[in-house]
Amino acid sequence: MGVEIEVKHLVADEGWRLVATDPVRMAQGYVAAAEDRTVRVRIGGDRAWLTLKFGTGMSRAEFEYVIPADDARELLDQAVGTVLDKTRWHVAHAGRTWEVDEFHGALEGLVLAELELDAEDDDFDLPPWIGEDVTGRPEYLNSSLSTRGMPR
Amino acid sequence: MGVEIEVKHLVADEGWRLVATDPVRMAQGYVAAAEDRTVRVRIGGDRAWLTLKFGTGMSRAEFEYVIPADDARELLDQAVGTVLDKTRWHVAHAGRTWEVDEFHGALEGLVLAELELDAEDDDFDLPPWIGEDVTGRPEYLNSSLSTRGMPR
Repeated sequence: MGVEIEVKHLVADEGWRLVATDPVRMAQGYVAAAEDRTVRVRIGGDRAWLTLKFGTGMSRAEFEYVIPADDARELLDQAVGTVLDKTRWHVAHAGRTWEVDEFHGALEGLVLAELELDAEDDDFDLPPWIGEDVTGRPEYLNSSLSTRGMPR
Repeated sequence: MGVEIEVKHLVADEGWRLVATDPVRMAQGYVAAAEDRTVRVRIGGDRAWLTLKFGTGMSRAEFEYVIPADDARELLDQAVGTVLDKTRWHVAHAGRTWEVDEFHGALEGLVLAELELDAEDDDFDLPPWIGEDVTGRPEYLNSSLSTRGMPR
């Protein structure tokens, strides 16, 4: 098990695009999604993962396993909610790498920036393009985006 | 993905014990359990598996992955319902091997015999010790036993 500690923000403008690298198109869906736990299937490039997360808020327990991409495609057919289509970009700032997810399809226009931390009280610097802090807001969980769609 | 095609019976008497071999004590629980899907964690001996099943009835889609036993123990702490404790026995009859699960703890006294088939219309011979056919009865799913306890 790992513990995933992560902050999540909206973006304020398009500034992140100037320094974004290594885009990976991802398909991800949930074969189970409750308030306190999710079972996620993700395909990125030719790799795929099954990821279980437990808990709410900034820190969650996470278990991740590489699975065959063929399995992942079949599992996505069993998803509750829609399968999310997004491009993940990597954006360096002040010695850290933010993951910026640009959503497509029904969520076109939504961009979320995430930063993984080693501890909840880790210091980090906010990039100039960063927007509202939505860490821990359930409507911005990818599982909520999948089952409930775009936050209002 | 595999398709699991399986019949499940109660036992009528203790006759199966005379020919039962290779017992494996198992702990298993569910980190997600709905009517049409389960996410199961099983530890048997020093091995562990994460298994996703979809569908109802005699045939279900099944995805199974070996996971570290340490992960499995942590996942069982996240189980919905109780963690089942059972001994799985292997019982040969007429060229096939039945799996006979003898439950312990709160389900002591319950014994379920399962046979995996290659097709729903496969022929097979019922052993003399076999009891009522409970194939597809939701209260005899291990996930139901975990979340709802002993069937009435």
